[in-house]
This record gives sequence, C-alpha cells and structure tokens, in this order.
Amino acid sequence: MERIWSTEIRQHVGERVRLAGWLHHLRRLRGVSFLILRDAKGLAQVVVEDPAVVEQLAQLHHESVLTVDGTIVAEPQAPGGVEVRQPSVEVLSPAACPPPFDLFRPVVKAQLPTILDHAPVALRHPRHRALLRIASASMAGFRATLRSMDFVEVQTPKIVGAATETGANVFTVDYFGRPAYLAQSPQLYKQIMVGVFERVFEVGPVFRAEPHDTPRHLNEYVSLDVELGFVRDHTTVMEVLTRVLQGMVSAIRDEAADAVAQLGVVLPEVPQPIPRIHFADAMEMIARETGDDLSREPDLAPEHERWLGDWARREHGSEFLFVVGYPMSKRPFYTHPDPARPGYSNSFDLLFRGLELVTGGQRLHRRADYLAALAARGMNPEPLSWYLEAFAHGMPPHGGFAIGLERWVARLVGAANIRETALFPRDMNRLAP
Amino acid sequence: MERIWSTEIRQHVGERVRLAGWLHHLRRLRGVSFLILRDAKGLAQVVVEDPAVVEQLAQLHHESVLTVDGTIVAEPQAPGGVEVRQPSVEVLSPAACPPPFDLFRPVVKAQLPTILDHAPVALRHPRHRALLRIASASMAGFRATLRSMDFVEVQTPKIVGAATETGANVFTVDYFGRPAYLAQSPQLYKQIMVGVFERVFEVGPVFRAEPHDTPRHLNEYVSLDVELGFVRDHTTVMEVLTRVLQGMVSAIRDEAADAVAQLGVVLPEVPQPIPRIHFADAMEMIARETGDDLSREPDLAPEHERWLGDWARREHGSEFLFVVGYPMSKRPFYTHPDPARPGYSNSFDLLFRGLELVTGGQRLHRRADYLAALAARGMNPEPLSWYLEAFAHGMPPHGGFAIGLERWVARLVGAANIRETALFPRDMNRLAP
Repeated sequence: MERIWSTEIRQHVGERVRLAGWLHHLRRLRGVSFLILRDAKGLAQVVVEDPAVVEQLAQLHHESVLTVDGTIVAEPQAPGGVEVRQPSVEVLSPAACPPPFDLFRPVVKAQLPTILDHAPVALRHPRHRALLRIASASMAGFRATLRSMDFVEVQTPKIVGAATETGANVFTVDYFGRPAYLAQSPQLYKQIMVGVFERVFEVGPVFRAEPHDTPRHLNEYVSLDVELGFVRDHTTVMEVLTRVLQGMVSAIRDEAADAVAQLGVVLPEVPQPIPRIHFADAMEMIARETGDDLSREPDLAPEHERWLGDWARREHGSEFLFVVGYPMSKRPFYTHPDPARPGYSNSFDLLFRGLELVTGGQRLHRRADYLAALAARGMNPEPLSWYLEAFAHGMPPHGGFAIGLERWVARLVGAANIRETALFPRDMNRLAP
Repeated sequence: MERIWSTEIRQHVGERVRLAGWLHHLRRLRGVSFLILRDAKGLAQVVVEDPAVVEQLAQLHHESVLTVDGTIVAEPQAPGGVEVRQPSVEVLSPAACPPPFDLFRPVVKAQLPTILDHAPVALRHPRHRALLRIASASMAGFRATLRSMDFVEVQTPKIVGAATETGANVFTVDYFGRPAYLAQSPQLYKQIMVGVFERVFEVGPVFRAEPHDTPRHLNEYVSLDVELGFVRDHTTVMEVLTRVLQGMVSAIRDEAADAVAQLGVVLPEVPQPIPRIHFADAMEMIARETGDDLSREPDLAPEHERWLGDWARREHGSEFLFVVGYPMSKRPFYTHPDPARPGYSNSFDLLFRGLELVTGGQRLHRRADYLAALAARGMNPEPLSWYLEAFAHGMPPHGGFAIGLERWVARLVGAANIRETALFPRDMNRLAP
C-alpha cells in the first residue's frame, strides 16, 4: 500500500490507507486510546481500541517511528473532522528514551538555551517547523520573483583572500598555512557579476565575527543578496526590493499557509510604493517630536527606528518605511553619493515594523571614484585590485540590497530572539548542534 | 524610452528602440562601421554610418558601457536577421583601458591561470557566461524537482564545532579564540532534518582542505544535497536522484537553450531506470576484461570508472551508470550495510560519462548502530553527541546524496578543468579574485 500524508486523509474517507510518522502523543483513556501520529506535513488522530495495540504503543517512547494502516472515518469531534480507526501498527524505529521535553504541548516548555541545545528534537515541534517553513517559502518567493525579472543566480566564494570590505569583524581561516577570511557578504562579487549578467542574486551564508551577544545578531546567517545594473539611482533598487518583498509575502501565503495559521502570523501588506523619508528629515522630525538631541550622532538608534516605524504606521498605514540618503560617513566605501546633496548618499535602509531589515543603495561605478573613495578613507587599494579590475572595464550605474533571512522571519512572526528562527544558530558561545 | 534586451529586437522591426550594454566590438570599414553591443542576454549589431558617431565610438575602449537608441531593420545578412540603424549613442561609463584579452573572439585566447586571474572580465565572454547560465539552470531544476516532491529547503551552518565527519581535510577557523571548522558537507545536519521534515535539500558551499592540485578538485564548491526518510533502502534514493537529474536536464533545455547552443552541448538522456551494476560484479568484470589485478585494492580507480562508463554506453546505451554496494570499508561511518551481503553497503556512486558525479546511499538510523559503527572505527562518539541525539529519538530509515555543481557542469560541457566552471575557483594557490 502506498503511504499518504496526514494532510491527505480527508480525501480518503471510507478507505484503508497507510500513514507513517512519529509517535507524537498517546492519550490512554478508559476503553479507548488516541494515538497522535506526526508526519512532515501535520498530525493525524488514530483511535486505538484493540488492547493489544494499546499495549504495543504504551511500551514505546514518544518519537518512535511508526507505520500505521487504518480506515479513515469522518468524525466531527476529531481534529480536521476525520480520524483513523482499526489501526495496525508497525514499529519502524523505536526511540531509545523519552524526548528532553514534550513535543505535543502547544509550545516547548523549556528555556531558549535548552531548546537550542536540543535543536535536533526541538525543531520537530510544529511551531518550530512552522518557522522554518516560512523561511523556506521566503527563499522560494525571493528567487521566483527575481528569476521572473531576468536575474541570474550566482554562488560566490565564501573563503576570501583579503579582509577588505570593512576590515574588521572577519573570521580568519587557516588556508594551507596562510591566513584567509570568511566572506562578510557577497558584496564585492555580486558587483563584479553585474558586469557579466547585469542582474544577479544569491542566497547563501555570510559570516560576521561581531563579539556581541544580542537577541538580534547571529555570527553566521543567511543573506538574500541582489545586485542590478543600469539603474537610474537607488530608487530603481527600491522598486526591485518592493517587488521582491511582495513576492516573498505571497510565496509565504501560498506555500506556508499552514505555518502562518499555526503561528498566528499576520502577513504584512507591502504597499506600492513603500513610503519613504529622507534621513535628514527623519532626524529633524524625531528631534522635534521626541526632544532628543540628535545633532552629535548622525545615525538612527534602535529607539528612533521604532519611533519611525510607529510614525509610518500612523501616517501612512504602512509597516514598511524606506529611510533614504544616509550620511556618506555612515556607509561603506562603495556607496554612491547623492549628487544633489553633499554629504548624503544614494542609499537606504528599509525598516519593517520599526526594525532595520534591509540595507541597500547605489554603488560607485567608475574606477576613478573608487580610487578617490579608498584614498579618502585611508584604505589601501592593492588588496582590492581584483575587484577594481571590474570597474576599469566598464560598469554601468548599479546598486543592490541584502535581506537577512532570519531577521525577516523573526520580525514577521514577532520572535523575541533571532535564534528562534535560525536552523542551528551560531553565536559567540554556540557552535553546536 | 524603455530599454529592451538584445534578444528582443526581432519583435521590433521598424521601431525606434533603446538598447544598453557593453561595447563588445567595433569593426570599422570604409563608409560603414559595425558596433556589436553586448547585454546580459546576447549581442546586437548596430550599423554606424554617421562619421561623428564612428569617431565617438573609436575613442572608447572595448567594454565601455553604452546606451544606444536606434531603428530596427530586417537585414538577412545580419546575425539573427535584424540590425540597428541610425544609432545615437550615449556613453554611460567609459572603460579606463583595454581589456586584458579580446572578448569578441570565439574563445578567450589566454592560458587558464590568466583567465582566472582576470575572471571579472573573462566571465563576460559569451562562452564563460554560458557555463554559468547552465549552472544557474541546474540549480533551478534541482530545486523545482524536489519542491514538487514535497522536499523542504534548509540552510545549515557552515561553521561547525567539531571536525567530525571524516576527521581529516577540514579548514580551521579562529572562532573568538577557539578552533572551529568549515563544514565538509551538510551531511550530519541534513540527516537531523529528516527527523523534522522527512525530505530536505540544500544548495550551498562545502569546504575541503584537500592538499591536491588536480583538474577535478576544488577546495570550495557548491554542493546540491538531498536527504529523505522512509526509504525502502538505497534504491529509493536512486529513484529520487534519477528524477532530480531529469529535472536538471530539462531546466537546462528550457532555461539555458542559448547557452547550450553557444557551447554546442549535447544534453544527455537520463534513462528510467538508470542501469546499475554491483560493485563486486563491476570489479570482477573489469579484472576479467582488462586483466588488471584488482584483488588487493577494493576500489575503482579513475581508469576503471572510465572503462565502466564506456561499458554502460556500449551495453546499455546510457551515459549514466549506478555502481551499487561499495565495500563498507570504503564508506563513512554513517553508511548502512547491505543486510544480505556482509562487507558491502547500501550505497552507490553515479558515474556520468565515466566519472563519479554523485555519491549517496542509505544511512544507519538506529542509535545503537551508530555507537557500534563509531566504536568499530575507533571514533569517539562524544563530539558527535548532538548528532546522535537525533537517533535516540526515532529516525526512520533514510538516505540521500550530494551532487557537486561544478563537476556536473564540467562533465556536461566537457570542460578539461573544473576551474573553468566555477565562478571564482578556490584551490591551494588561488584565493582571488
């Protein structure tokens, strides 16, 4: 008999079917017992009346792997309106011991570090699985949107020869006896690839050796990167980002509907266009409205991002807000200045529900501008010669952005700690599982 | 005016359009000149008669970035039957110097190391781009096939705490003052994820610190990984792999037709089923037919793989051949033995055109079997405790495989060196670009 998914049993009322999965829970009542079987897609309720089968199940630890043959019966009382009766059970793989926490309860009742220590088991919990399904659907929506717009997928190297992008916060690798580094982002490579394909994207790991232990940082995370050529300026990039976000939200709606329901997530509307405010105007407004003195620190603190998030919701009915024109002094060397407003840049942050989710902008595209920008920052162009070669040979005006996948999911579901949304998070103290 | 792609001009005969791209070539003849403009998708021939425009173009280096407005005219002599006339040209971004080699010639006339040193320019050559388009289409076909079969995409960590999978050939990372390692594969994580989603896949970088400099190895490459639960044995895995390869070939046919034509690639038929031979039978046949003494070395040398590839083509009309049942002694600790044939395993290699392309098989799924397998190899289970936890809590019979993306593309197009098919290859001596 061909196995079917737990989510398919409604279409098989009256039939004998085969299910397979994990012993999620066994409730023993007088006269009848209920086996909840979990497979990759959901749960099925199995009514066990035969005392021999009850006895067989009672001797198993939760999470044992079973095959269950049974008859599907409509039962209004059962979850989903159907249940499995007259089961015969085969034990495919017995669990060796009870799980470290109950997976059948609505949430895992343990502290986050304990949950992370036991991730191989904790991730099986339906809520944890739902987070990962949202991540998976997000990646699919990201790629599908970009492919429909003629973007080409690339995979750039993660071991790099020079710690060049910002100089700090890189992990060092012993590369056959000489130092190499883990890429902090595919930035330099994706720009080079604009010279090849004009429009490229990448989904891959990035590595940040930041010695911070906060609920919103990881030392390794998944970056959704985009770069495109022949832009007008940063606003072309913002238009592409808007479409990408719309595609990600609709992929979640279409492909992870169960996960959205499971988590009670309210998916955001992505307005067309997303409202925008210039950095200088934002600073002025915040200073005026909050009384904070922002004149000495030309940057948005987290509380100012939250304030702007509230403002965007109130004034524009939007959960997204572009802050454009960050000061050049706050942006990396490849940032394109705003030709109309000295000191400010053609760059943006996208705030989502009051938190920075995406950074992007237009980049320099002329070799001479790069040499000047590096010189102004006292940076040596020599270790970047391979990168600068691309600009010696004709690069169009271009720009791009990067979305942190885990941060996106965390903000979407309202997770208090980004570690809840990473598969196996890496932080200063955590290298396993 | 909205810009169109070079590949779209045929649909605009008689219209004035805007193109944008790179100055690929300028042929100056008496009275008329031909500008070949390259964009991300192809080439367009622009006829330049106005001496002022010829002069403007003649002062530019190749690879300068241009916008060209012109009228599309049907011209049987022109490549593709159409050309652009009465152009007006705007220089968006002039090249600072000539490229290190001519990109307009049929192939880049330089030695491979020179080509790799100048990859930011060399990758713009239509042949090099075609290789990358085939890689991109392969990834898309891989994912689409697996998603249609209910596989969930995961992204597992690349920085790991223990150099455990094989012990050797790992890169060491300085992780906040203590040693960590770069993952040689997502093997252990993808197995854990079978307990969560039953069926998972990943496309991501893997790192091998192998101190070899050969035309078929890279120290960092892109691995296409699959793992699935509730398998009968390794043959279920082989069935999934067959469908995945069919999906990859059809994605290349559909999405990279221009690249296939450009490179003159003959796409393989993926037979259903792919022929298979047991390792022991293969060894016996090779010994008999070639006279080689294989009794002391229970493995297939590259020349034996080639011999088997020829045999499969001759006997089965197939460019693919499964070699199943490799000796347990040649496989990693997680390999499932063949219950019917002591000493042999439920594993396989897939040969493609006489070269190993994929390794896979069934894995152990019971904790006790893992402990016994590790003990038999003298391996300490303690650093693997996080991995073994998954098996303490119920894991179904499962298996999987991994395809090396660059090797797949190299074999498909007949590249002599795998470095030709990697974006920015990493080897013992190459960390840049």
